[in-house]
Amino acid sequence: MSKLWGGRFNKKTDPLVDKFTSSIGYDYILARFDLISSIAHAKMLGKTKIIPVKDSAKIVEGLKSILNQIEKGKFVFDKKAEDIHTNIQATLEKKIGRVAQKLHTARSRNDQVATDIRMYAKNEIKNLKFKIKNLQSALLDFGKKNISVIIPGFTHLQHAQPVLLTHQLLAYVEMLERDKERLSEAYKRCDVLPLGSGAIAGSSLPIDRKYVARLLGFSKIAENSIDAVSDRDFVVEILADLSILSMHLSRLAEELIIWASPEFSILELDDAFCTGSSLMPQKKNPDVLELVRGSTGNAYGNLIAFLTTMKGLPLAYNRDMQLDKPALFNAAEGTIICLEVLCGLIRTAGINKNQALILCADEFLCATDLAEYLVKKGVAFKEAHEIVGKICALAYGKKIFLSEVPLGEWKKYSARFEKDVYQLLDSSASIKSKRSYGGTSPLSVKRQLSDWKRKLKK
Amino acid sequence: MSKLWGGRFNKKTDPLVDKFTSSIGYDYILARFDLISSIAHAKMLGKTKIIPVKDSAKIVEGLKSILNQIEKGKFVFDKKAEDIHTNIQATLEKKIGRVAQKLHTARSRNDQVATDIRMYAKNEIKNLKFKIKNLQSALLDFGKKNISVIIPGFTHLQHAQPVLLTHQLLAYVEMLERDKERLSEAYKRCDVLPLGSGAIAGSSLPIDRKYVARLLGFSKIAENSIDAVSDRDFVVEILADLSILSMHLSRLAEELIIWASPEFSILELDDAFCTGSSLMPQKKNPDVLELVRGSTGNAYGNLIAFLTTMKGLPLAYNRDMQLDKPALFNAAEGTIICLEVLCGLIRTAGINKNQALILCADEFLCATDLAEYLVKKGVAFKEAHEIVGKICALAYGKKIFLSEVPLGEWKKYSARFEKDVYQLLDSSASIKSKRSYGGTSPLSVKRQLSDWKRKLKK
Amino acid sequence: MSKLWGGRFNKKTDPLVDKFTSSIGYDYILARFDLISSIAHAKMLGKTKIIPVKDSAKIVEGLKSILNQIEKGKFVFDKKAEDIHTNIQATLEKKIGRVAQKLHTARSRNDQVATDIRMYAKNEIKNLKFKIKNLQSALLDFGKKNISVIIPGFTHLQHAQPVLLTHQLLAYVEMLERDKERLSEAYKRCDVLPLGSGAIAGSSLPIDRKYVARLLGFSKIAENSIDAVSDRDFVVEILADLSILSMHLSRLAEELIIWASPEFSILELDDAFCTGSSLMPQKKNPDVLELVRGSTGNAYGNLIAFLTTMKGLPLAYNRDMQLDKPALFNAAEGTIICLEVLCGLIRTAGINKNQALILCADEFLCATDLAEYLVKKGVAFKEAHEIVGKICALAYGKKIFLSEVPLGEWKKYSARFEKDVYQLLDSSASIKSKRSYGGTSPLSVKRQLSDWKRKLKK
Amino acid sequence: MSKLWGGRFNKKTDPLVDKFTSSIGYDYILARFDLISSIAHAKMLGKTKIIPVKDSAKIVEGLKSILNQIEKGKFVFDKKAEDIHTNIQATLEKKIGRVAQKLHTARSRNDQVATDIRMYAKNEIKNLKFKIKNLQSALLDFGKKNISVIIPGFTHLQHAQPVLLTHQLLAYVEMLERDKERLSEAYKRCDVLPLGSGAIAGSSLPIDRKYVARLLGFSKIAENSIDAVSDRDFVVEILADLSILSMHLSRLAEELIIWASPEFSILELDDAFCTGSSLMPQKKNPDVLELVRGSTGNAYGNLIAFLTTMKGLPLAYNRDMQLDKPALFNAAEGTIICLEVLCGLIRTAGINKNQALILCADEFLCATDLAEYLVKKGVAFKEAHEIVGKICALAYGKKIFLSEVPLGEWKKYSARFEKDVYQLLDSSASIKSKRSYGGTSPLSVKRQLSDWKRKLKK
Repeated sequence: MSKLWGGRFNKKTDPLVDKFTSSIGYDYILARFDLISSIAHAKMLGKTKIIPVKDSAKIVEGLKSILNQIEKGKFVFDKKAEDIHTNIQATLEKKIGRVAQKLHTARSRNDQVATDIRMYAKNEIKNLKFKIKNLQSALLDFGKKNISVIIPGFTHLQHAQPVLLTHQLLAYVEMLERDKERLSEAYKRCDVLPLGSGAIAGSSLPIDRKYVARLLGFSKIAENSIDAVSDRDFVVEILADLSILSMHLSRLAEELIIWASPEFSILELDDAFCTGSSLMPQKKNPDVLELVRGSTGNAYGNLIAFLTTMKGLPLAYNRDMQLDKPALFNAAEGTIICLEVLCGLIRTAGINKNQALILCADEFLCATDLAEYLVKKGVAFKEAHEIVGKICALAYGKKIFLSEVPLGEWKKYSARFEKDVYQLLDSSASIKSKRSYGGTSPLSVKRQLSDWKRKLKK
Repeated sequence: MSKLWGGRFNKKTDPLVDKFTSSIGYDYILARFDLISSIAHAKMLGKTKIIPVKDSAKIVEGLKSILNQIEKGKFVFDKKAEDIHTNIQATLEKKIGRVAQKLHTARSRNDQVATDIRMYAKNEIKNLKFKIKNLQSALLDFGKKNISVIIPGFTHLQHAQPVLLTHQLLAYVEMLERDKERLSEAYKRCDVLPLGSGAIAGSSLPIDRKYVARLLGFSKIAENSIDAVSDRDFVVEILADLSILSMHLSRLAEELIIWASPEFSILELDDAFCTGSSLMPQKKNPDVLELVRGSTGNAYGNLIAFLTTMKGLPLAYNRDMQLDKPALFNAAEGTIICLEVLCGLIRTAGINKNQALILCADEFLCATDLAEYLVKKGVAFKEAHEIVGKICALAYGKKIFLSEVPLGEWKKYSARFEKDVYQLLDSSASIKSKRSYGGTSPLSVKRQLSDWKRKLKK
Repeated sequence: MSKLWGGRFNKKTDPLVDKFTSSIGYDYILARFDLISSIAHAKMLGKTKIIPVKDSAKIVEGLKSILNQIEKGKFVFDKKAEDIHTNIQATLEKKIGRVAQKLHTARSRNDQVATDIRMYAKNEIKNLKFKIKNLQSALLDFGKKNISVIIPGFTHLQHAQPVLLTHQLLAYVEMLERDKERLSEAYKRCDVLPLGSGAIAGSSLPIDRKYVARLLGFSKIAENSIDAVSDRDFVVEILADLSILSMHLSRLAEELIIWASPEFSILELDDAFCTGSSLMPQKKNPDVLELVRGSTGNAYGNLIAFLTTMKGLPLAYNRDMQLDKPALFNAAEGTIICLEVLCGLIRTAGINKNQALILCADEFLCATDLAEYLVKKGVAFKEAHEIVGKICALAYGKKIFLSEVPLGEWKKYSARFEKDVYQLLDSSASIKSKRSYGGTSPLSVKRQLSDWKRKLKK
Repeated sequence: MSKLWGGRFNKKTDPLVDKFTSSIGYDYILARFDLISSIAHAKMLGKTKIIPVKDSAKIVEGLKSILNQIEKGKFVFDKKAEDIHTNIQATLEKKIGRVAQKLHTARSRNDQVATDIRMYAKNEIKNLKFKIKNLQSALLDFGKKNISVIIPGFTHLQHAQPVLLTHQLLAYVEMLERDKERLSEAYKRCDVLPLGSGAIAGSSLPIDRKYVARLLGFSKIAENSIDAVSDRDFVVEILADLSILSMHLSRLAEELIIWASPEFSILELDDAFCTGSSLMPQKKNPDVLELVRGSTGNAYGNLIAFLTTMKGLPLAYNRDMQLDKPALFNAAEGTIICLEVLCGLIRTAGINKNQALILCADEFLCATDLAEYLVKKGVAFKEAHEIVGKICALAYGKKIFLSEVPLGEWKKYSARFEKDVYQLLDSSASIKSKRSYGGTSPLSVKRQLSDWKRKLKK
């Protein structure tokens, strides 16, 4: 296939070089965006009379017919062509003849590919935000369904204080909301049109960049042609956002894997979201969650890959930057399927309420409430903490429940203890008392739920 | 030094454990923020009558006096204490006695440290933005001083088209502006108060979180206590922002190193910003730029370090998260000094204008102008590209300048070439023709300069 | 302090540059190695008559006296000096006068620092191997002490098959052995002397590199002077080895954290290796394990940091390479303390044998044994797997034990089941049957133990 | 396609789960190894009478026929099957009927896939070593062809001292040799057979692991079944080795890109190894080198990806580990093509000898020789360095050559300077004087060349 350059060369490129520098293996994904941006460019060339209007119209028509083919899945990519741009150019020439050679006027592949990838990025961010929202909704619905379930809240994977399961699920909804925020902000930085910057210097032809921006729905136009062709910040930024998002998903996955272990047993995964073992007939494995957890590596890896690639590149465009695409495509697609599959898994999972009750029977979960009980009676917190700590040690040592420690024993540590102290040794009472803003009391959690319901409707 | 816990324990911690888990080696940096947040917390405990007003007042007074000591550099950190919080608590107890034990009421180190580090982050972001702005100003001033200098614009480290040096410098100003934008957005996510979330569940005491937020200047209050103590997104986000910023600095440094090489020789570094060799007496080395370039590794490394640490942590607080601090402190400080030193280097650097002229004598830089010349005469761009490519090959082959190719020879390739074609073989003419928006024409570059002048004033 | 260069310079370096390029903040660690290598260098200069023998002797004496000071902790580093080499040179000049100026003959800081860091690396590898061996011994002793404990072997954090606890611990001993192997191999690549390569080109003076190598205990001499000063492979390699080692430690830490959770409860950590909570009086947290797990980020981060720094550096020495030191020092020290603290933790930990028995009461752990039972009776494995899977599903559905399924029921799925099938539903029987080489049978585990005893003695 | 498990499940897996957990998209690469290892396993099952000999024979025959199909490219992978193992099992069942169900006896996918990937790794290491050797040979031949070319040796991208071009090329040959060494050592750790470890515990059937190892050419057998199925060290290790190798290639690529810039112009790339610009007709770009440099990101990214995935995984097999394959395959293939294309590029490149001479006309390159001249006359090196530095500063200031400084002027700085000092201002003389072992003298370089010739023959 004829290259977009070559006049200056005396030799054909080596076949190995063609293979090595080819990007068609992944940039075919940009086909739709490349066509749409070429259509806008061609229209502009006509409008500004840089090329005759009728040539512009022919080119636009030709490009639209290729776009149509692609949308119907009927376009065959020539794996031997250098990249998607060469592929489309060659097809256009076949379709409409020599007039196709006017399309690349006042344009370089440098600004063209930067435009295409920004269009891809904008589209993918919308996609990602939609999938994140779905996962938030799934968590919310799961939370509503299990609104009364109390579980031990963990810090250091040790029992800390009782919390509502729903409260814990909402912590993930908060994380995911920040992910959407970050992506929305990255979107703004994607939404800047590079087209019209040429290879590096701008153009000597009377192009109309605002018109192109309008046609393509870009809010801003790149202010500096050198920056326009050499900037890939938005790719790194999206990769960083996806890394944080993946980190969140890995935390959720880890939590659910632990909850699904026989020892915890509070989560029941649906058979449709588990897999088995080829050797051990009894196994039902949370493979989906493990792959979500493991895929964090994919996001981090792509982030570091492209940060490395960009390190120390002098201005302006360097071919290294072609590697923005495999990193971005791979990370975006990898994250989207994780979001989808987690969503399905949560929508079909169940909570073993009985087991939750058993785990919450641990009265030590309420030790903090005991200390605050003393504070309310005037004891300095640090002293109260010390007192309760000693009583806990006593109970641990004797292997008895706190409720089995007789009042007289309590009073040895502090005269302020009265009979009502036993009422505190109950997860449900503990939950109810956490009425501070953002705390785990049913009231607070219901407020959060209704806030989220409103926010996610938008 | 007495720990903030211990009642439940029968044994002292092993000295190696004390050393291993200690964070005082780096979290002393948080001292100021810890004191300020403790003062606000103590005021709230008084205001809400959770502790007597006079106790609150005593605590506040004690804390203020420690703050005073620290600001005067008179505070001695006890390296044996577990962390900065324990250090301050112990000092407070020495200063004001038993009443100090009431300070930790309705608070956990989990929400306390999250508050401190957010205060640090907010402060450091302001700092970073200021330093970035200084570097932008230095680039701007350097650009203004050299407004008439034309250099070869490079792509692939090969001569592409002539550009104004200032235009190229402004590409870096654009990058740095995006860095500030990203940091400003991260700031919003730092600006959320976790204090009042306790260890995980909130509090059973009637705390007033809005009051604390007002005192500490936080715009928002964390909505979910579990998220509040386990969220370190803002740390990762800042690390990612610093990685992108460092990548920009590495590109600038690389460019300047190349420009300062004897073969390019367009940049002259001031002796005050260079170093020599212990063996080779003639050497004047751009070590500063190399260390800036190399420090990119520091930013990327800290990003990956903390992303790794956070991977797969179940809720809520886990001790692993203590490692947010060395990563954040190290990356922030490392980046700030790079910004400072680059600023000084640029403010003292000079341009070898004569050498710039020599490099721009390469007439091939204007090949694109030749192609656009033909386009203006109706030739399809792709054909024009091919024609000019062949003429370039001819000149390369004969080792002559394009201006030495006689007109008759040009006309063999295209009859449209006329005498005026020779006027295009001039960098200055090329620059002037790039009048498209964002292009490198003097007009466009002056517009950019005045825009930046206005923006940076803010 | 006087620099090692400067004749060519007209201006002093900017104080900010001094601060920025200074490495004394971390390279003071190299002091001992710098002195030892300088002593060898000075001896060689005398031996080869490059400088008079009596000058050589004076220099050696001076250096030895500084070495003595340093070993006694009496040397005061001048934080204003550029680096450790300048520090020592200045001290030497003060001590022995002008003759000190002859020390740097036929040497550059490029080959000098490369030598120092290789000496550091060799020493640190020995250190690391010793600490790894200690951890292996601790695991081995812990395994011996609990030789009879059976636990559920997990895959996917689900019950797989019963295994001996000791067998599982020995898996970590295997990992650690590979870590030692890798470090030993990296050692070989550290053990090559760069000294004598000068800045880049070698020397025109008649130096004797073999003599220096002998004095310093290097097995090989760098064959190419350019490679000698620009090679930092060995640093990256050690960082990679430490990353794999840290990954192993993170797996062990995660495992122990899970085992120490109230739901698993098979591991009991000693109070001396745990910490408490400032809010929750009952807490006993495995912070040590969490910090070990989190420190994986430190190793990975330093690896990526220095890999990034080295990316794309042209030959030969560039100042970026100075950043090898913080990365290597930080990773090595960070890993060593993790090894030490883990060793202490394991030596003091206990196993809750009763709880292990309870967890192993899960008869489904023996499902694979049931399938192999059928195989022994001629059933194809895949069919056997299917049969047993169905019986498990039946028991799960009815919420009964496999031992509660009556024989008649078994026979419905396969006529080959006989009464003796119930004997298989026992962890102890399962363990004993795994007699394949490397399996978990007591015989196999004891063989491993005795092999390790022998190997670790070396 | 029928799964290798399922008896215990009441529901089909969700189609999204099938898509998400499927690995056939990449693990088809293992097909050949899976078949070969299955053949060995089947033979062993027959030999040990675990299954009837005739069943074993049928299975072996069936597997061989599939292997034959695959080697002829006639095997069609069923993209709907879970993985390559399921694909092959299903095909086998179709081919030879029910007896195929006996193949998976005494084997789990856990030990099976670990075996396959080790076989892949062993094969790929051989491949990589071969390609590295080819690149070494290309560098060697290029060095021989240009044995007389002197270039400025650079440190800090500033002129340091003259070196032979060949000496510099040999520095890369040294690096690549270490890469081969590291890979050879990783090979040893790949060369351990996991098969026979089952899912985690070993087997209760009388398998013969030594026989299998012999058939498959493994030197060792995994000693611990838990380690055997959960160890992926060798994958990380290869990824680390490839990262260092890629770092080397990025340095070489950067160097060549700089050498090919118009300002340096000492390297001439063949047209067949360059590409052009779609806009600028005169461009001839070193895209190949840029992509090699950029691909470093790919290696680093895959390393971090899989290190991240492995972090904190408890024993034994977890599904996360499936992600070893895309990381390893991608990094190995990516590195191999870089090696191939660099080899071709170097074999076709030329040196512009005239330009090398011009660059070496810089007399300051010999400043170190001047200092050593004084040393030979008894001046202390540090003083000599200072003297020559001042003379350089003088020449720089007056913008004259050192050879233009009259002898009287030299003598002002040191009376030891005599007429013969001017003979030192010559690159060729400088080169010849560097006779120290490993230095850049022609003698030393020729010795290196002949050593390499011998070594690479092996």
